[in-house]
Amino acid sequence: MNILLEEQGLRDGLQTLPTLVPLEIKVAWVHRLIEAGLKRIQVASFVHPRLVPQMADAEALFAQLGRRSDVVLSALVLNQKGVVRAIDAGVQHLAISLSASETHSLKNTRMTLAAAKVDFRENLRLAQQHHITVRAGIQCAFGCRYEGQIDPQHVLDLVKHHADAGANEIALADSTGMANPRQLKTLMEQVLDVAGDLPVSLHLHNTENKGLANVYAGLEAGVRQFDTAFGGLGGCPFIKNATGNIATEDTVHLLHQMGYETGLDLKKLASLSQDIAQFLEMPLPGALYKLMQEPIQVC
Amino acid sequence: MNILLEEQGLRDGLQTLPTLVPLEIKVAWVHRLIEAGLKRIQVASFVHPRLVPQMADAEALFAQLGRRSDVVLSALVLNQKGVVRAIDAGVQHLAISLSASETHSLKNTRMTLAAAKVDFRENLRLAQQHHITVRAGIQCAFGCRYEGQIDPQHVLDLVKHHADAGANEIALADSTGMANPRQLKTLMEQVLDVAGDLPVSLHLHNTENKGLANVYAGLEAGVRQFDTAFGGLGGCPFIKNATGNIATEDTVHLLHQMGYETGLDLKKLASLSQDIAQFLEMPLPGALYKLMQEPIQVC
Repeated sequence: MNILLEEQGLRDGLQTLPTLVPLEIKVAWVHRLIEAGLKRIQVASFVHPRLVPQMADAEALFAQLGRRSDVVLSALVLNQKGVVRAIDAGVQHLAISLSASETHSLKNTRMTLAAAKVDFRENLRLAQQHHITVRAGIQCAFGCRYEGQIDPQHVLDLVKHHADAGANEIALADSTGMANPRQLKTLMEQVLDVAGDLPVSLHLHNTENKGLANVYAGLEAGVRQFDTAFGGLGGCPFIKNATGNIATEDTVHLLHQMGYETGLDLKKLASLSQDIAQFLEMPLPGALYKLMQEPIQVC
Repeated sequence: MNILLEEQGLRDGLQTLPTLVPLEIKVAWVHRLIEAGLKRIQVASFVHPRLVPQMADAEALFAQLGRRSDVVLSALVLNQKGVVRAIDAGVQHLAISLSASETHSLKNTRMTLAAAKVDFRENLRLAQQHHITVRAGIQCAFGCRYEGQIDPQHVLDLVKHHADAGANEIALADSTGMANPRQLKTLMEQVLDVAGDLPVSLHLHNTENKGLANVYAGLEAGVRQFDTAFGGLGGCPFIKNATGNIATEDTVHLLHQMGYETGLDLKKLASLSQDIAQFLEMPLPGALYKLMQEPIQVC
Protein backbone atom coordinates (compact mmCIF):
# COMPACT_ATOMS: atom_id res chain seq x y z
CA MET A 1 0.00 0.00 0.00
CA ASN A 2 1.34 3.42 -0.94
CA ILE A 3 1.67 6.36 1.40
CA LEU A 4 2.21 9.91 0.09
CA LEU A 5 4.49 12.11 2.17
CA GLU A 6 4.55 15.86 1.67
CA GLU A 7 7.92 17.28 2.69
CA GLN A 8 7.45 20.56 4.57
CA GLY A 9 10.93 21.10 5.96
CA LEU A 10 11.59 24.09 3.70
CA ARG A 11 8.43 25.84 4.86
CA ASP A 12 7.34 24.66 8.31
CA GLY A 13 10.86 23.58 9.21
CA LEU A 14 12.68 26.77 8.29
CA GLN A 15 10.07 29.44 8.99
CA THR A 16 10.93 29.99 12.64
CA LEU A 17 14.72 29.68 12.32
CA PRO A 18 16.82 32.74 13.09
CA THR A 19 19.42 31.82 10.43
CA LEU A 20 18.35 32.75 6.90
CA VAL A 21 18.95 29.93 4.44
CA PRO A 22 20.21 31.31 1.10
CA LEU A 23 18.18 30.69 -2.03
CA GLU A 24 20.76 28.50 -3.75
CA ILE A 25 20.93 26.22 -0.68
CA LYS A 26 17.14 25.84 -0.65
CA VAL A 27 17.21 24.95 -4.35
CA ALA A 28 19.90 22.33 -3.74
CA TRP A 29 17.88 20.81 -0.89
CA VAL A 30 14.74 20.62 -3.05
CA HIS A 31 16.72 18.82 -5.75
CA ARG A 32 18.05 16.33 -3.22
CA LEU A 33 14.51 15.73 -1.91
CA ILE A 34 13.32 15.02 -5.45
CA GLU A 35 16.31 12.72 -5.92
CA ALA A 36 15.26 10.87 -2.73
CA GLY A 37 11.84 10.24 -4.28
CA LEU A 38 9.60 12.97 -2.83
CA LYS A 39 6.56 13.57 -5.03
CA ARG A 40 5.24 16.56 -3.14
CA ILE A 41 7.24 19.33 -1.51
CA GLN A 42 5.93 22.47 0.15
CA VAL A 43 8.78 24.83 -0.58
CA ALA A 44 7.56 28.20 0.68
CA SER A 45 4.77 30.35 2.03
CA PHE A 46 3.62 33.63 0.52
CA VAL A 47 3.42 35.65 3.71
CA HIS A 48 4.68 39.06 4.73
CA PRO A 49 8.48 39.04 4.52
CA ARG A 50 8.73 41.20 7.62
CA LEU A 51 6.79 38.61 9.65
CA VAL A 52 8.60 35.59 8.20
CA PRO A 53 11.93 36.69 6.70
CA GLN A 54 12.82 33.07 5.87
CA MET A 55 10.06 33.03 3.24
CA ALA A 56 10.92 36.38 1.61
CA ASP A 57 12.40 34.56 -1.40
CA ALA A 58 9.25 32.56 -2.21
CA GLU A 59 8.87 34.01 -5.73
CA ALA A 60 12.56 33.60 -6.48
CA LEU A 61 12.49 30.00 -5.27
CA PHE A 62 9.56 29.05 -7.53
CA ALA A 63 11.27 30.84 -10.44
CA GLN A 64 14.50 28.90 -9.86
CA LEU A 65 12.76 25.55 -9.53
CA GLY A 66 10.58 26.02 -12.62
CA ARG A 67 7.55 23.96 -13.57
CA ARG A 68 8.07 20.24 -13.12
CA SER A 69 6.02 17.24 -14.10
CA ASP A 70 7.73 14.78 -11.72
CA VAL A 71 6.93 16.52 -8.44
CA VAL A 72 4.24 18.82 -7.04
CA LEU A 73 5.77 21.98 -5.60
CA SER A 74 3.36 23.52 -3.16
CA ALA A 75 3.08 26.69 -1.11
CA LEU A 76 1.11 27.93 1.86
CA VAL A 77 -0.90 31.16 1.88
CA LEU A 78 -2.81 32.91 4.64
CA ASN A 79 -4.76 35.56 2.75
CA GLN A 80 -5.78 36.98 -0.63
CA LYS A 81 -2.52 38.83 -1.07
CA GLY A 82 -0.72 35.51 -0.70
CA VAL A 83 -2.97 33.88 -3.30
CA VAL A 84 -2.27 36.68 -5.79
CA ARG A 85 1.48 36.37 -5.23
CA ALA A 86 1.27 32.60 -5.68
CA ILE A 87 -0.69 32.98 -8.93
CA ASP A 88 1.90 35.41 -10.23
CA ALA A 89 4.67 32.99 -9.26
CA GLY A 90 3.03 30.20 -11.28
CA VAL A 91 2.33 27.97 -8.25
CA GLN A 92 0.15 24.95 -9.05
CA HIS A 93 -0.70 23.63 -5.58
CA LEU A 94 -1.71 25.77 -2.61
CA ALA A 95 -2.49 25.09 1.03
CA ILE A 96 -5.19 27.39 2.45
CA SER A 97 -6.68 26.83 5.88
CA LEU A 98 -9.07 27.80 8.64
CA SER A 99 -8.68 27.30 12.35
CA ALA A 100 -11.17 25.12 14.20
CA SER A 101 -10.57 27.33 17.23
CA GLU A 102 -12.41 30.65 17.33
CA THR A 103 -9.83 32.09 19.75
CA HIS A 104 -6.91 30.96 17.63
CA SER A 105 -8.60 32.39 14.53
CA LEU A 106 -9.13 35.74 16.23
CA LYS A 107 -5.58 35.93 17.57
CA ASN A 108 -3.93 34.66 14.40
CA THR A 109 -5.99 36.33 11.66
CA ARG A 110 -8.08 38.91 13.54
CA MET A 111 -11.15 37.26 11.98
CA THR A 112 -14.01 35.39 13.58
CA LEU A 113 -14.46 31.92 12.17
CA ALA A 114 -17.53 33.10 10.25
CA ALA A 115 -15.53 35.89 8.59
CA ALA A 116 -12.58 33.54 8.01
CA LYS A 117 -14.90 31.11 6.20
CA VAL A 118 -16.02 33.80 3.75
CA ASP A 119 -12.41 34.84 3.20
CA PHE A 120 -11.39 31.21 2.76
CA ARG A 121 -14.00 30.56 0.06
CA GLU A 122 -12.99 33.68 -1.87
CA ASN A 123 -9.32 32.68 -1.75
CA LEU A 124 -10.12 29.13 -2.81
CA ARG A 125 -12.22 30.37 -5.74
CA LEU A 126 -9.54 32.82 -6.84
CA ALA A 127 -6.84 30.14 -6.77
CA GLN A 128 -8.97 27.59 -8.64
CA GLN A 129 -9.86 30.17 -11.29
CA HIS A 130 -6.15 30.15 -12.01
CA HIS A 131 -6.05 26.36 -12.21
CA ILE A 132 -4.38 25.91 -8.84
CA THR A 133 -5.13 22.75 -6.88
CA VAL A 134 -6.22 23.72 -3.37
CA ARG A 135 -5.57 21.68 -0.26
CA ALA A 136 -7.99 23.00 2.33
CA GLY A 137 -6.70 22.79 5.87
CA ILE A 138 -8.17 22.78 9.35
CA GLN A 139 -5.81 24.08 12.04
CA CYS A 140 -6.19 23.10 15.71
CA ALA A 141 -8.22 20.10 14.57
CA PHE A 142 -7.29 18.03 17.63
CA GLY A 143 -7.00 20.69 20.31
CA CYS A 144 -5.99 24.28 20.90
CA ARG A 145 -3.55 25.70 23.44
CA TYR A 146 -6.08 28.49 24.10
CA GLU A 147 -9.33 26.57 24.09
CA GLY A 148 -8.21 23.09 25.02
CA GLN A 149 -10.44 20.45 23.47
CA ILE A 150 -12.13 21.09 20.15
CA ASP A 151 -15.57 19.58 19.51
CA PRO A 152 -15.10 16.78 16.95
CA GLN A 153 -18.48 17.63 15.36
CA HIS A 154 -17.20 21.15 14.72
CA VAL A 155 -14.20 19.70 12.87
CA LEU A 156 -16.47 17.46 10.81
CA ASP A 157 -18.61 20.49 9.93
CA LEU A 158 -15.49 22.25 8.69
CA VAL A 159 -14.52 19.24 6.57
CA LYS A 160 -18.00 19.40 5.00
CA HIS A 161 -17.60 23.17 4.57
CA HIS A 162 -14.31 22.65 2.71
CA ALA A 163 -15.75 19.88 0.55
CA ASP A 164 -18.85 21.95 -0.28
CA ALA A 165 -16.62 24.91 -1.16
CA GLY A 166 -14.97 22.73 -3.81
CA ALA A 167 -11.62 22.01 -2.15
CA ASN A 168 -9.48 19.49 -4.00
CA GLU A 169 -8.03 17.97 -0.84
CA ILE A 170 -8.52 18.16 2.92
CA ALA A 171 -5.78 18.47 5.54
CA LEU A 172 -6.11 18.32 9.32
CA ALA A 173 -3.36 19.88 11.39
CA ASP A 174 -2.08 19.28 14.91
CA SER A 175 0.68 21.88 14.92
CA THR A 176 0.95 21.90 18.71
CA GLY A 177 1.12 18.12 19.07
CA MET A 178 -1.91 17.84 21.35
CA ALA A 179 -3.64 14.96 19.55
CA ASN A 180 -3.62 11.56 21.15
CA PRO A 181 -3.84 8.41 19.03
CA ARG A 182 -7.19 7.17 20.29
CA GLN A 183 -8.88 10.54 19.73
CA LEU A 184 -7.20 10.94 16.34
CA LYS A 185 -8.20 7.49 15.10
CA THR A 186 -11.86 8.04 16.02
CA LEU A 187 -12.02 11.48 14.45
CA MET A 188 -10.14 10.51 11.28
CA GLU A 189 -12.47 7.59 10.60
CA GLN A 190 -15.34 10.09 10.63
CA VAL A 191 -13.40 12.67 8.61
CA LEU A 192 -12.69 10.12 5.88
CA ASP A 193 -16.40 9.32 5.76
CA VAL A 194 -17.38 12.97 5.37
CA ALA A 195 -14.57 13.71 2.88
CA GLY A 196 -15.72 10.92 0.58
CA ASP A 197 -13.48 10.81 -2.49
CA LEU A 198 -11.33 13.76 -1.47
CA PRO A 199 -7.78 12.91 -0.41
CA VAL A 200 -7.22 13.61 3.28
CA SER A 201 -3.85 14.30 4.84
CA LEU A 202 -2.53 14.76 8.37
CA HIS A 203 -0.08 17.42 9.50
CA LEU A 204 1.38 16.20 12.81
CA HIS A 205 3.95 17.59 15.20
CA ASN A 206 6.01 15.69 17.74
CA THR A 207 5.69 18.36 20.44
CA GLU A 208 4.61 15.87 23.12
CA ASN A 209 6.49 12.88 21.65
CA LYS A 210 3.27 11.43 20.24
CA GLY A 211 4.02 12.16 16.57
CA LEU A 212 4.55 8.63 15.31
CA ALA A 213 1.88 7.24 17.63
CA ASN A 214 -0.52 9.56 15.83
CA VAL A 215 0.82 8.47 12.42
CA TYR A 216 0.09 4.88 13.40
CA ALA A 217 -3.40 5.82 14.59
CA GLY A 218 -3.98 7.74 11.34
CA LEU A 219 -2.94 4.72 9.31
CA GLU A 220 -5.29 2.52 11.33
CA ALA A 221 -8.10 4.96 10.50
CA GLY A 222 -7.25 4.78 6.78
CA VAL A 223 -5.22 7.99 6.26
CA ARG A 224 -2.70 7.66 3.43
CA GLN A 225 -1.10 11.12 3.28
CA PHE A 226 1.13 12.77 5.88
CA ASP A 227 3.20 15.93 6.10
CA THR A 228 6.76 15.54 7.39
CA ALA A 229 9.90 17.67 7.71
CA PHE A 230 13.55 16.67 7.26
CA GLY A 231 15.13 15.85 10.61
CA GLY A 232 11.90 16.78 12.39
CA LEU A 233 12.74 20.46 12.01
CA GLY A 234 10.12 23.03 12.93
CA GLY A 235 8.18 23.65 16.06
CA CYS A 236 5.78 26.18 17.35
CA PRO A 237 6.99 29.77 17.55
CA PHE A 238 4.93 30.20 20.69
CA ILE A 239 6.05 27.16 22.67
CA LYS A 240 9.58 27.33 24.00
CA ASN A 241 11.47 24.03 23.77
CA ALA A 242 8.87 22.55 21.44
CA THR A 243 10.17 19.95 19.03
CA GLY A 244 8.98 20.11 15.47
CA ASN A 245 7.16 18.26 12.78
CA ILE A 246 7.35 14.50 12.59
CA ALA A 247 10.71 13.73 10.94
CA THR A 248 10.60 12.54 7.34
CA GLU A 249 13.19 9.81 7.90
CA ASP A 250 11.59 8.56 11.14
CA THR A 251 8.19 8.38 9.44
CA VAL A 252 9.57 6.62 6.36
CA HIS A 253 11.34 4.07 8.56
CA LEU A 254 8.15 3.40 10.53
CA LEU A 255 6.13 3.02 7.32
CA HIS A 256 8.62 0.67 5.69
CA GLN A 257 8.81 -1.44 8.85
CA MET A 258 5.05 -1.81 8.81
CA GLY A 259 5.06 -2.90 5.16
CA TYR A 260 3.92 0.33 3.51
CA GLU A 261 5.55 1.67 0.36
CA THR A 262 6.62 5.27 0.06
CA GLY A 263 8.89 5.28 -2.98
CA LEU A 264 11.43 7.09 -0.80
CA ASP A 265 15.12 6.36 -0.29
CA LEU A 266 15.75 6.42 3.46
CA LYS A 267 19.53 6.66 3.11
CA LYS A 268 19.32 9.70 0.85
CA LEU A 269 16.84 11.37 3.19
CA ALA A 270 19.02 10.69 6.24
CA SER A 271 22.09 11.96 4.44
CA LEU A 272 20.29 15.20 3.53
CA SER A 273 19.16 15.72 7.13
CA GLN A 274 22.73 15.15 8.32
CA ASP A 275 23.92 17.86 5.94
CA ILE A 276 21.10 20.22 6.97
CA ALA A 277 21.96 19.74 10.66
CA GLN A 278 25.56 20.52 9.82
CA PHE A 279 24.58 23.59 7.78
CA LEU A 280 22.31 24.89 10.56
CA GLU A 281 24.96 24.01 13.16
CA MET A 282 22.43 22.35 15.44
CA PRO A 283 21.11 18.86 16.05
CA LEU A 284 17.63 18.28 14.64
CA PRO A 285 15.00 16.41 16.69
CA GLY A 286 14.76 13.39 14.35
CA ALA A 287 16.20 10.04 15.48
CA LEU A 288 16.93 8.06 12.33
CA TYR A 289 19.33 10.48 10.63
CA LYS A 290 21.50 10.32 13.76
CA LEU A 291 21.29 6.54 14.08
CA MET A 292 22.24 6.20 10.40
CA GLN A 293 25.31 8.41 10.72
CA GLU A 294 27.37 5.35 11.50
CA PRO A 295 26.56 1.67 11.32
CA ILE A 296 24.97 0.35 14.51
CA GLN A 297 27.41 -2.08 16.02
CA VAL A 298 25.65 -4.31 18.45
CA CYS A 299 22.39 -5.16 20.16
CA MET B 1 -8.75 1.46 33.61
CA ASN B 2 -5.54 1.38 35.60
CA ILE B 3 -2.06 1.20 34.14
CA LEU B 4 0.96 0.25 36.26
CA LEU B 5 4.20 2.04 35.44
CA GLU B 6 7.51 0.75 36.72
CA GLU B 7 10.02 3.59 37.05
CA GLN B 8 13.45 2.46 35.84
CA GLY B 9 15.27 5.77 35.67
CA LEU B 10 17.52 4.93 38.59
CA ARG B 11 18.66 1.69 36.99
CA ASP B 12 18.28 1.79 33.19
CA GLY B 13 18.48 5.57 33.14
CA LEU B 14 21.63 6.00 35.20
CA GLN B 15 23.60 2.85 34.37
CA THR B 16 25.40 4.25 31.33
CA LEU B 17 26.02 7.76 32.66
CA PRO B 18 29.61 8.84 33.19
CA THR B 19 28.68 10.97 36.25
CA LEU B 20 28.23 8.95 39.43
CA VAL B 21 25.07 9.92 41.28
CA PRO B 22 25.71 9.93 45.07
CA LEU B 23 23.70 7.59 47.26
CA GLU B 24 21.86 10.34 49.14
CA ILE B 25 20.72 11.88 45.85
CA LYS B 26 19.37 8.54 44.65
CA VAL B 27 17.50 8.12 47.92
CA ALA B 28 15.98 11.59 47.58
CA TRP B 29 14.86 10.84 44.01
CA VAL B 30 13.23 7.57 45.09
CA HIS B 31 11.32 9.42 47.80
CA ARG B 32 10.12 11.98 45.27
CA LEU B 33 9.01 9.19 42.91
CA ILE B 34 7.01 7.60 45.72
CA GLU B 35 5.56 11.02 46.54
CA ALA B 36 4.50 11.33 42.87
CA GLY B 37 2.56 8.09 43.18
CA LEU B 38 4.88 5.43 41.78
CA LYS B 39 3.99 1.96 43.09
CA ARG B 40 6.94 0.16 41.57
CA ILE B 41 10.50 1.42 41.20
CA GLN B 42 13.52 -0.49 39.94
CA VAL B 43 16.23 1.20 41.95
CA ALA B 44 19.37 -0.77 41.12
CA SER B 45 20.99 -3.77 39.53
CA PHE B 46 23.28 -6.24 41.30
CA VAL B 47 26.00 -6.42 38.68
CA HIS B 48 29.78 -6.18 38.83
CA PRO B 49 30.70 -2.72 40.13
CA ARG B 50 33.64 -2.55 37.75
CA LEU B 51 31.35 -3.04 34.74
CA VAL B 52 28.63 -0.69 35.99
CA PRO B 53 30.09 1.68 38.59
CA GLN B 54 26.75 3.53 38.85
CA MET B 55 25.22 0.46 40.49
CA ALA B 56 28.04 -0.21 42.98
CA ASP B 57 25.91 1.14 45.83
CA ALA B 58 22.99 -1.27 45.23
CA GLU B 59 23.21 -2.83 48.73
CA ALA B 60 23.58 0.55 50.40
CA LEU B 61 20.61 1.92 48.50
CA PHE B 62 18.30 -0.91 49.56
CA ALA B 63 19.55 -0.55 53.14
CA GLN B 64 18.80 3.17 53.13
CA LEU B 65 15.35 2.75 51.60
CA GLY B 66 14.32 -0.05 53.94
CA ARG B 67 11.33 -2.34 53.52
CA ARG B 68 8.19 -0.52 52.47
CA SER B 69 4.61 -1.63 52.17
CA ASP B 70 3.49 1.25 49.90
CA VAL B 71 5.81 0.62 46.99
CA VAL B 72 7.62 -2.32 45.39
CA LEU B 73 11.36 -1.66 45.17
CA SER B 74 12.84 -3.88 42.51
CA ALA B 75 16.28 -4.75 41.18
CA LEU B 76 17.76 -6.37 38.11
CA VAL B 77 20.20 -9.28 38.19
CA LEU B 78 22.10 -11.04 35.43
CA ASN B 79 23.47 -14.12 37.20
CA GLN B 80 23.52 -16.22 40.37
CA LYS B 81 25.95 -13.93 42.12
CA GLY B 82 23.48 -11.10 41.58
CA VAL B 83 20.63 -13.17 43.01
CA VAL B 84 22.66 -13.96 46.13
CA ARG B 85 23.54 -10.31 46.64
CA ALA B 86 19.87 -9.34 46.18
CA ILE B 87 18.77 -11.96 48.73
CA ASP B 88 21.32 -10.66 51.23
CA ALA B 89 20.11 -7.09 50.59
CA GLY B 90 16.52 -8.10 51.38
CA VAL B 91 15.18 -7.37 47.90
CA GLN B 92 11.59 -8.53 47.39
CA HIS B 93 11.17 -8.15 43.61
CA LEU B 94 13.72 -9.17 41.00
CA ALA B 95 13.95 -8.92 37.23
CA ILE B 96 15.76 -11.86 35.62
CA SER B 97 15.84 -12.32 31.86
CA LEU B 98 16.90 -14.24 28.79
CA SER B 99 17.62 -12.95 25.33
CA ALA B 100 15.50 -14.12 22.43
CA SER B 101 18.56 -13.66 20.24
CA GLU B 102 21.16 -16.45 20.32
CA THR B 103 23.87 -14.05 19.09
CA HIS B 104 22.98 -11.44 21.70
CA SER B 105 22.94 -14.12 24.39
CA LEU B 106 26.39 -15.36 23.38
CA LYS B 107 27.90 -11.88 23.21
CA ASN B 108 26.24 -10.60 26.36
CA THR B 109 26.44 -13.62 28.68
CA ARG B 110 28.81 -16.01 26.85
CA MET B 111 26.02 -18.59 27.08
CA THR B 112 24.01 -20.28 24.36
CA LEU B 113 20.29 -19.83 24.80
CA ALA B 114 19.99 -23.45 25.96
CA ALA B 115 22.60 -22.87 28.68
CA ALA B 116 21.07 -19.52 29.58
CA LYS B 117 17.69 -21.22 30.08
CA VAL B 118 19.15 -23.66 32.61
CA ASP B 119 20.91 -20.81 34.40
CA PHE B 120 17.71 -18.73 34.35
CA ARG B 121 15.63 -21.49 35.96
CA GLU B 122 18.21 -22.00 38.71
CA ASN B 123 18.30 -18.28 39.46
CA LEU B 124 14.53 -18.06 39.47
CA ARG B 125 14.24 -21.00 41.85
CA LEU B 126 16.89 -19.60 44.19
CA ALA B 127 15.16 -16.21 44.31
CA GLN B 128 11.71 -17.70 44.89
CA GLN B 129 13.07 -19.94 47.66
CA HIS B 130 13.84 -16.66 49.41
CA HIS B 131 10.32 -15.37 48.84
CA ILE B 132 11.33 -12.99 46.08
CA THR B 133 8.79 -12.21 43.35
CA VAL B 134 10.42 -12.79 39.96
CA ARG B 135 9.63 -10.87 36.82
CA ALA B 136 10.94 -13.00 33.98
CA GLY B 137 12.11 -10.99 31.00
CA ILE B 138 12.73 -11.61 27.32
CA GLN B 139 15.33 -9.31 25.78
CA CYS B 140 15.40 -8.56 22.04
CA ALA B 141 11.77 -9.69 21.85
CA PHE B 142 11.00 -7.51 18.84
CA GLY B 143 14.30 -7.54 16.98
CA CYS B 144 18.05 -7.69 17.48
CA ARG B 145 20.74 -5.37 16.12
CA TYR B 146 22.84 -8.48 15.36
CA GLU B 147 20.21 -10.84 14.02
CA GLY B 148 17.56 -8.46 12.73
CA GLN B 149 14.08 -9.96 12.99
CA ILE B 150 13.26 -12.44 15.73
CA ASP B 151 10.77 -15.21 15.02
CA PRO B 152 7.56 -14.41 16.96
CA GLN B 153 7.00 -18.12 17.66
CA HIS B 154 10.39 -18.26 19.36
CA VAL B 155 9.31 -15.40 21.64
CA LEU B 156 6.04 -17.17 22.43
CA ASP B 157 8.01 -20.34 23.27
CA LEU B 158 10.10 -18.32 25.72
CA VAL B 159 6.96 -16.87 27.33
CA LYS B 160 5.75 -20.43 27.82
CA HIS B 161 9.18 -21.42 29.14
CA HIS B 162 9.04 -18.61 31.72
CA ALA B 163 5.48 -19.47 32.73
CA ASP B 164 6.33 -23.18 33.06
CA ALA B 165 9.38 -22.29 35.14
CA GLY B 166 7.07 -20.60 37.63
CA ALA B 167 7.77 -16.94 36.90
CA ASN B 168 5.48 -14.51 38.73
CA GLU B 169 5.39 -12.03 35.87
CA ILE B 170 6.51 -11.76 32.25
CA ALA B 171 8.29 -8.78 30.66
CA LEU B 172 9.16 -8.24 27.01
CA ALA B 173 11.93 -5.80 26.20
CA ASP B 174 12.73 -3.70 23.16
CA SER B 175 15.87 -2.02 24.50
CA THR B 176 17.05 -0.99 21.04
CA GLY B 177 13.73 0.50 19.95
CA MET B 178 13.32 -1.70 16.88
CA ALA B 179 9.70 -2.73 17.45
CA ASN B 180 7.02 -1.24 15.24
CA PRO B 181 3.47 -0.84 16.51
CA ARG B 182 1.82 -3.25 14.09
CA GLN B 183 4.29 -6.03 14.85
CA LEU B 184 4.12 -5.33 18.57
CA LYS B 185 0.33 -5.38 18.71
CA THR B 186 0.12 -8.72 16.91
CA LEU B 187 2.80 -10.35 19.06
CA MET B 188 1.49 -8.96 22.35
CA GLU B 189 -2.02 -10.28 21.69
CA GLN B 190 -0.48 -13.73 21.37
CA VAL B 191 1.83 -13.23 24.36
CA LEU B 192 -1.12 -12.30 26.58
CA ASP B 193 -2.88 -15.48 25.45
CA VAL B 194 0.11 -17.66 26.30
CA ALA B 195 0.81 -15.85 29.59
CA GLY B 196 -2.73 -16.47 30.82
CA ASP B 197 -3.14 -15.00 34.30
CA LEU B 198 0.46 -13.80 34.62
CA PRO B 199 0.91 -10.03 34.47
CA VAL B 200 2.80 -8.97 31.33
CA SER B 201 4.78 -5.77 30.98
CA LEU B 202 6.57 -3.98 28.18
CA HIS B 203 10.00 -2.37 28.39
CA LEU B 204 10.21 0.07 25.47
CA HIS B 205 12.87 2.47 24.28
CA ASN B 206 12.40 5.52 22.09
CA THR B 207 15.56 4.91 20.03
CA GLU B 208 13.75 5.30 16.71
CA ASN B 209 11.08 7.70 17.99
CA LYS B 210 8.48 4.94 18.08
CA GLY B 211 8.30 4.60 21.86
CA LEU B 212 4.82 6.00 22.45
CA ALA B 213 3.51 4.50 19.21
CA ASN B 214 4.48 1.15 20.70
CA VAL B 215 2.85 2.02 24.02
CA TYR B 216 -0.36 2.75 22.16
CA ALA B 217 -0.08 -0.52 20.22
CA GLY B 218 0.59 -2.37 23.49
CA LEU B 219 -2.51 -0.83 25.06
CA GLU B 220 -4.56 -1.85 22.02
CA ALA B 221 -3.30 -5.41 22.51
CA GLY B 222 -4.30 -5.34 26.18
CA VAL B 223 -0.98 -4.65 27.94
CA ARG B 224 -1.44 -2.79 31.24
CA GLN B 225 2.13 -2.52 32.58
CA PHE B 226 4.99 -0.48 31.15
CA ASP B 227 8.51 0.42 32.21
CA THR B 228 9.47 4.09 31.94
CA ALA B 229 12.35 6.34 33.00
CA PHE B 230 12.27 9.91 34.27
CA GLY B 231 12.93 12.34 31.44
CA GLY B 232 13.42 9.45 29.02
CA LEU B 233 16.92 8.92 30.40
CA GLY B 234 18.85 5.85 29.32
CA GLY B 235 19.82 4.52 25.97
CA CYS B 236 21.87 1.75 24.58
CA PRO B 237 25.57 1.72 25.50
CA PHE B 238 26.31 0.31 22.06
CA ILE B 239 24.39 2.77 19.90
CA LYS B 240 25.86 6.25 19.74
CA ASN B 241 23.29 9.03 19.77
CA ALA B 242 20.55 6.65 20.90
CA THR B 243 17.81 8.20 22.99
CA GLY B 244 16.62 6.31 26.00
CA ASN B 245 13.63 4.69 27.61
CA ILE B 246 10.19 6.07 27.04
CA ALA B 247 9.88 9.06 29.38
CA THR B 248 7.73 8.60 32.46
CA GLU B 249 6.06 12.02 32.11
CA ASP B 250 5.42 11.63 28.37
CA THR B 251 3.86 8.22 28.91
CA VAL B 252 1.72 9.42 31.83
CA HIS B 253 0.47 12.35 29.76
CA LEU B 254 -0.42 10.05 26.85
CA LEU B 255 -2.22 7.65 29.18
CA HIS B 256 -4.19 10.37 30.94
CA GLN B 257 -5.16 11.92 27.59
CA MET B 258 -6.53 8.57 26.47
CA GLY B 259 -8.58 8.17 29.64
CA TYR B 260 -6.39 5.71 31.55
CA GLU B 261 -5.65 6.10 35.23
CA THR B 262 -2.12 5.83 36.59
CA GLY B 263 -2.41 7.29 40.09
CA LEU B 264 0.56 9.47 39.17
CA ASP B 265 1.03 13.21 39.61
CA LEU B 266 2.33 14.56 36.29
CA LYS B 267 3.46 17.88 37.76
CA LYS B 268 5.53 16.22 40.45
CA LEU B 269 7.10 13.87 37.91
CA ALA B 270 7.93 16.73 35.55
CA SER B 271 9.39 18.76 38.38
CA LEU B 272 11.63 15.85 39.39
CA SER B 273 12.85 15.38 35.81
CA GLN B 274 13.62 19.10 35.61
CA ASP B 275 15.74 18.79 38.76
CA ILE B 276 17.46 15.63 37.48
CA ALA B 277 18.30 17.35 34.18
CA GLN B 278 19.75 20.24 36.17
CA PHE B 279 21.71 17.89 38.43
CA LEU B 280 23.12 15.95 35.46
CA GLU B 281 23.75 19.22 33.61
CA MET B 282 22.23 17.92 30.39
CA PRO B 283 18.84 17.99 28.73
CA LEU B 284 16.98 14.70 28.91
CA PRO B 285 15.15 13.33 25.83
CA GLY B 286 11.63 13.62 27.29
CA ALA B 287 9.27 16.29 25.96
CA LEU B 288 6.73 16.97 28.70
CA TYR B 289 9.10 17.99 31.49
CA LYS B 290 10.43 20.71 29.17
CA LEU B 291 6.99 21.82 28.01
CA MET B 292 5.86 22.04 31.64
CA GLN B 293 8.79 24.21 32.70
CA GLU B 294 6.73 27.28 31.92
CA PRO B 295 3.07 27.71 31.08
CA ILE B 296 2.38 27.35 27.38
CA GLN B 297 1.19 30.70 26.17
CA VAL B 298 -0.58 30.34 22.87
CA CYS B 299 -1.71 27.98 20.14
